[in-house]
Amino acid sequence: MARYRATVAYDGTAYEGFQRQTRPNTVQGVLEAAIYAVTQQTVTVIGAGRTDTGVHAEGQVIAFDVDWRHETHKLLNALNAHLPDDIALQDLCVQEGFHPRFDALSRRYRYTVLEAPHRQPLLRHRVWHVPDPLDVEAMQTVAQALVGQHDFAAFGHPPQGSNTVRTVYTSRWMRAPQPYGALLIYTVEANAFLHHMVRRMVGVMVDVGRGRTTVEGALALFNSRDIAQARTLAPACGLILEAVRYNE
Amino acid sequence: MARYRATVAYDGTAYEGFQRQTRPNTVQGVLEAAIYAVTQQTVTVIGAGRTDTGVHAEGQVIAFDVDWRHETHKLLNALNAHLPDDIALQDLCVQEGFHPRFDALSRRYRYTVLEAPHRQPLLRHRVWHVPDPLDVEAMQTVAQALVGQHDFAAFGHPPQGSNTVRTVYTSRWMRAPQPYGALLIYTVEANAFLHHMVRRMVGVMVDVGRGRTTVEGALALFNSRDIAQARTLAPACGLILEAVRYNE
Repeated sequence: MARYRATVAYDGTAYEGFQRQTRPNTVQGVLEAAIYAVTQQTVTVIGAGRTDTGVHAEGQVIAFDVDWRHETHKLLNALNAHLPDDIALQDLCVQEGFHPRFDALSRRYRYTVLEAPHRQPLLRHRVWHVPDPLDVEAMQTVAQALVGQHDFAAFGHPPQGSNTVRTVYTSRWMRAPQPYGALLIYTVEANAFLHHMVRRMVGVMVDVGRGRTTVEGALALFNSRDIAQARTLAPACGLILEAVRYNE
Repeated sequence: MARYRATVAYDGTAYEGFQRQTRPNTVQGVLEAAIYAVTQQTVTVIGAGRTDTGVHAEGQVIAFDVDWRHETHKLLNALNAHLPDDIALQDLCVQEGFHPRFDALSRRYRYTVLEAPHRQPLLRHRVWHVPDPLDVEAMQTVAQALVGQHDFAAFGHPPQGSNTVRTVYTSRWMRAPQPYGALLIYTVEANAFLHHMVRRMVGVMVDVGRGRTTVEGALALFNSRDIAQARTLAPACGLILEAVRYNE
């Protein structure tokens, strides 16, 4: 029995999130089924981040324990051959004692907004389409105010046995013009995130961008620590778990 | 009755190409059905480029004739409300005498290759996944040799009443590194293209990139004008009709 560590990419469109719990159709469940098909062993896959229904990943990190007598790259190829086309491992190695969640130093997410008058079919499962012009400078002001150690109670409930203080290392918007609009790409890295935290942060920043609230209004919401005031939840499809960072 | 001109974007995954002919499920057919639903008029939609089954478009250009007594932007919004989520107009205007195919000066296509050891689910309908390392410099040498007015008979059959001479204005590869591989993006602009021409060009260039043939072998194939020698047809899903250029 060895502990395997892998990076997993998936298109979350068809799944009820990463974590199995009692749900029939999760990324974790599909990974466990593929591992069973290849090794005939029933395992529990641990993930670094519990992505929601419809959220994607380029760099989810997982671990599981199995007996495997062949080379590691053969296990990687066999698993990818058994996984559906919307889930694939990007790498695989043995790392004893590794825990994807407890060992993680930070998680980095990317959220993409399409600012364009009309929807764009090729991006439809990857972006939040906002048909209004957005004031990116104002959104950036709010994004910068979120950097540092703060109480993020306005953007998520405290998990059991924990609090709502998190440390945000990176929080910034980038604008990439396109022929029929622009992509607004938000990158956020933090030691950890509350449930729906990125989507609530993006929700209030887009509200600022489209003039539904002011920078001051958004910061007052943040400082209120009152989740009832965060009314806009950005859609899941715009969110990607880009990478998880470890001490190595 | 006025002639309307529109730019259309679509995800070609679910369609048997653009042109209706006798096929049940084409982009043209869906556009005509939406126009009928909105205007109760049976029209023929003319497109600038006949994209194949599975090929996408960001900037296909179309024209059609209808009677419409309201503002043009209302027709645009009504059509987009009736079109499925994998097809959408990006703009619409009245332009008498406009013909998307005869008036076009050039078409620009983009083909994307994913050079990566493992498949990447988020890109699966947008790229050709090639698991081998690719020599982009060698591919670039072939790409540059295709610029100019040449007989492209090696890459496509002559259409009825036409020849196989075409003028290529742009033909180049760009490499964009990614965390688990690289995107190789080929941009090609020409006055017109033969059927499957871009996919055969990409096919032979990728064969050069992965060492299945040499630069000299690829150029000999091109100069042979013998389509029987072009054995590799790049998959449709990597191809996007980016834009059509007009004199305006």
